[in-house]
Amino acid sequence: MTKIVIIGGVAGGASAAARARRLSETAHILMFERGPFISFANCGLPYHIGGEITERSKLLLQTPESFLARFNVDVRVMSEVIHIDRQAKTVTVRNLVDQQEYQEDYDFLLLSPGASPVVPSIQGIDNPLTHTLRNIPDMDRIIQTIQMNKPEHATIVGGGFIGLEVMEAFHRLGIKTTLIEMADQVMTPIDREMAGFAHAEIRAKGIDLKLGVALESVEYISTDHIANVDSGESEDHQHIAGELKLSLNNGASLTTDILIIAIGVRPEIKLAAQAGLQIGESGGIYTNEYMQTSDPAIYAVGDAVEDQDFVTGKQTLVPLAGPANRQGRMAADNMLGRHETYQGTQGTAICKIFDLAVASTGKNEKQLKREGVAYEKVYVHTASHASYYPGAEVVSFKMLFDPQTGKIFGAQAVGKEGIDKRIDVMAVAQRAGMTVAQLQHLELTYAPPYGSAKDVINQAAFVATNLIKGDAVAIHYDQIDQLTADQVLLDVRNPGELQNGYLEGAINIPVDQLRQRLHELPKDKEIIIYCQVGLRGNVAYRQLVNNGFKARNLIGGYRTYLFAKA
Amino acid sequence: MTKIVIIGGVAGGASAAARARRLSETAHILMFERGPFISFANCGLPYHIGGEITERSKLLLQTPESFLARFNVDVRVMSEVIHIDRQAKTVTVRNLVDQQEYQEDYDFLLLSPGASPVVPSIQGIDNPLTHTLRNIPDMDRIIQTIQMNKPEHATIVGGGFIGLEVMEAFHRLGIKTTLIEMADQVMTPIDREMAGFAHAEIRAKGIDLKLGVALESVEYISTDHIANVDSGESEDHQHIAGELKLSLNNGASLTTDILIIAIGVRPEIKLAAQAGLQIGESGGIYTNEYMQTSDPAIYAVGDAVEDQDFVTGKQTLVPLAGPANRQGRMAADNMLGRHETYQGTQGTAICKIFDLAVASTGKNEKQLKREGVAYEKVYVHTASHASYYPGAEVVSFKMLFDPQTGKIFGAQAVGKEGIDKRIDVMAVAQRAGMTVAQLQHLELTYAPPYGSAKDVINQAAFVATNLIKGDAVAIHYDQIDQLTADQVLLDVRNPGELQNGYLEGAINIPVDQLRQRLHELPKDKEIIIYCQVGLRGNVAYRQLVNNGFKARNLIGGYRTYLFAKA
Repeated sequence: MTKIVIIGGVAGGASAAARARRLSETAHILMFERGPFISFANCGLPYHIGGEITERSKLLLQTPESFLARFNVDVRVMSEVIHIDRQAKTVTVRNLVDQQEYQEDYDFLLLSPGASPVVPSIQGIDNPLTHTLRNIPDMDRIIQTIQMNKPEHATIVGGGFIGLEVMEAFHRLGIKTTLIEMADQVMTPIDREMAGFAHAEIRAKGIDLKLGVALESVEYISTDHIANVDSGESEDHQHIAGELKLSLNNGASLTTDILIIAIGVRPEIKLAAQAGLQIGESGGIYTNEYMQTSDPAIYAVGDAVEDQDFVTGKQTLVPLAGPANRQGRMAADNMLGRHETYQGTQGTAICKIFDLAVASTGKNEKQLKREGVAYEKVYVHTASHASYYPGAEVVSFKMLFDPQTGKIFGAQAVGKEGIDKRIDVMAVAQRAGMTVAQLQHLELTYAPPYGSAKDVINQAAFVATNLIKGDAVAIHYDQIDQLTADQVLLDVRNPGELQNGYLEGAINIPVDQLRQRLHELPKDKEIIIYCQVGLRGNVAYRQLVNNGFKARNLIGGYRTYLFAKA
Repeated sequence: MTKIVIIGGVAGGASAAARARRLSETAHILMFERGPFISFANCGLPYHIGGEITERSKLLLQTPESFLARFNVDVRVMSEVIHIDRQAKTVTVRNLVDQQEYQEDYDFLLLSPGASPVVPSIQGIDNPLTHTLRNIPDMDRIIQTIQMNKPEHATIVGGGFIGLEVMEAFHRLGIKTTLIEMADQVMTPIDREMAGFAHAEIRAKGIDLKLGVALESVEYISTDHIANVDSGESEDHQHIAGELKLSLNNGASLTTDILIIAIGVRPEIKLAAQAGLQIGESGGIYTNEYMQTSDPAIYAVGDAVEDQDFVTGKQTLVPLAGPANRQGRMAADNMLGRHETYQGTQGTAICKIFDLAVASTGKNEKQLKREGVAYEKVYVHTASHASYYPGAEVVSFKMLFDPQTGKIFGAQAVGKEGIDKRIDVMAVAQRAGMTVAQLQHLELTYAPPYGSAKDVINQAAFVATNLIKGDAVAIHYDQIDQLTADQVLLDVRNPGELQNGYLEGAINIPVDQLRQRLHELPKDKEIIIYCQVGLRGNVAYRQLVNNGFKARNLIGGYRTYLFAKA
């Protein structure tokens, strides 16, 4: 009888326990969870704060009782494993209710402890109005603070998934919200210029978005005089009233009623490190492709481990639910004698930001630059479905690829409809090793309510293939502000479109008049063509080049240039 | 100077013309269109009838004038090419306005004539209240009939894309509608049991759906006495009032105010056949992978040509907009000296049927049976996104694959949300040559509003891989009604769920009680397990088999069985 001990009862741990039982009726399966809940919907926490998910119980997907009944797993909550004795193959468990400690032996141990929110060591940050959000008790505390203090203003530090989702939750609750992000953009999985769409949306909703700004110190000002005079019981719910004065690194300060720190997470490796398991360079628990740590009897999965990056092959930290779930299932397979291998992580991710979806897969441009990988990129802005059918929205799409082979490096998309679909298509294509040339041939679902005969992806593939074949020569939005005297800007949009902005110094000749007005353009200069999204620009580019001009087309058009500055 | 003559100015023809101009400024490009419009949105026609697309002008994507201005293409509408002289490389054109005929020579000829609606030779079908829908004038006539006659009842013959879309249009207009389909299902690209979901939806909306019924004869009864007495001008709009008496092959008859024939389309090959071009076995114009007909100077694309099936490699007819557009672009490439090859057609398709989307890619089960291909299948019914987040809908998903290698043969999906996305994922995976085992590793976008940590596709891949590995033994919905005395039905749902139906004779033991009640089951019989969708059934299956029972799990559960009969 194999005895499997699992540390951590959420995504990876719970998946492993269920799978292990399906494989073996005889295995003894024991799952320890430090918190009061197992298998809760951690991705749903912000949505319950905001009230979109009305019932808290919906977040509790399984209970120890249901897990026992269905999977015959001995689940022990409020139970922290505090020591691993690899020699003896035992763990020491502390019951957090009565502080009793005891040991359990194991044949296989699975570590699925997750990652904990990073809290910067900022003066005054340890106060009753400052929260992080990782689990149900965290969520309960935030909701309680909102209900009791009725905050008029909230501040979130960190523009990642959790920060953005909590921002939206506060906004839904009618609380004025400031979002502080140290970088010059939110959502680091996408590139700066694509984040511009998100910035515009966030600001349009009335959020006070501060980019490139860091929190320097926090001062807690209690407004509950009695409580502060006669007691220090800050844990007491009646005594947490007050406000926070935040000092920022740009010299500004602001007063807020609740502060959420969401600057990132750090793998929980303390137990693994104490046990002498190998920790990787990126700071997560090292595992091989079987999800096995440096001790063959110990497996590890989820946010605490390093994954192999699908593109670069390097070790990386990708704290996402999908990989955690699949790794848990796979670790169970392998503990019970199978040989399933993890196939690397692309980091496919999506975030709802008000009416927008923002999503990506694979590597972004920042990462490719950092890695010194040669790449090319294209931008396409086109309708989510046939534009003549109601409800079509612009999909803004970026694709990164190898300029020689056309191998897909990554993709990003932002818009109100069909974003998840396009990034899913790219995630599959990338995983399958397809090239951008092959994407031209993709046969995707088309009827007017759902797509277009030439989908966003087909169009991006056409543009990319044009670049690779030399049928188009690109100029990118970030080169537009550095034109030389040998370059001339040509705006091929209709005059009416220029009212919403144009590039200073551009000649305006609508594409449909270009053939008749070629003589207005100099043959000795490079014509930098642009239109709104790049499509008419390409028609104009082909005309000019086929007529002997030197030209480049602004890929993604004025729209890409404009939102890059947002 | 290359002279390219294009016959047909819609999807394939217009794409080819635009691409040809982008490649060459000097090419002489001439495009003939028999009808009054080019480049119109034929997929949008039913939606303008129903009023979802309010402006007719939105369907007219390009005009001869706009095409000339942008692409310098000489577009001649109302111009029918009536003869091809391959020897002389000329076409004879008839101007349908003045009936004048003239000749044009060509270097390359592109045939993109499309396909025409099939009208069965049924007695009385040629009457002013019977319509087909292929182009703008057809649409205009239907709308005019509706506006003038104010029909209370409409009948549609044919349950394919156009029939279903027109059905929905009539329903939107408040017209009682009968849909007659000779087969036992609508939407032949999907299999009968998946069509059951569509049937239920269609009937729930109040449509009189008649399956397995054919129209035998039509009688036109004019109610406009004056018109009928003194003239035969049935073309005159004032004289089309009346009704139709339809006789069906089941002996029934019905009276209707407007009749739409939408039983399918037939490639327009007359001109090609007269010119002696090779016609394929399936009845479309033969082309090689370069979209070149049996005459190297003549290319053909779109609904009129045979495509190579992506799975079987056989020639097939797939009248869809996506392939037509891409083929047109490719034919232009090749006429201008490139060597682009068409990569085969999967037949990816989607149709909106009221609140449902119904979609498929690759081969269906009927086709695989017909081809004698060994296959296995799985069904999954799971939430379109995290079920705890508002708005999740069931995605009903079927996947067909090679039982040995796991190669993907095809997929079908039905539901209210996320259907296009799942079939797109499958279309890419199939085109990339992925196996169902590889689909387990797909990393798709996940946040609660968009997906699940284990997406529909991952789950289907798990089930399929379980079958291939022998971790599960399947029984399918169509075997349930033929159980033997050596088989016992076990329903592992909760008792409350049985109120909405169950299989006669089943023992009910909820999965969570199964481990304690194993003694109630016979060890000498095969236990046929089922639950609602197959997931708990699998948990039960693993328990039973690991405890020494013989068992099978109903893949897709009771839901698949139930809707197969709808």
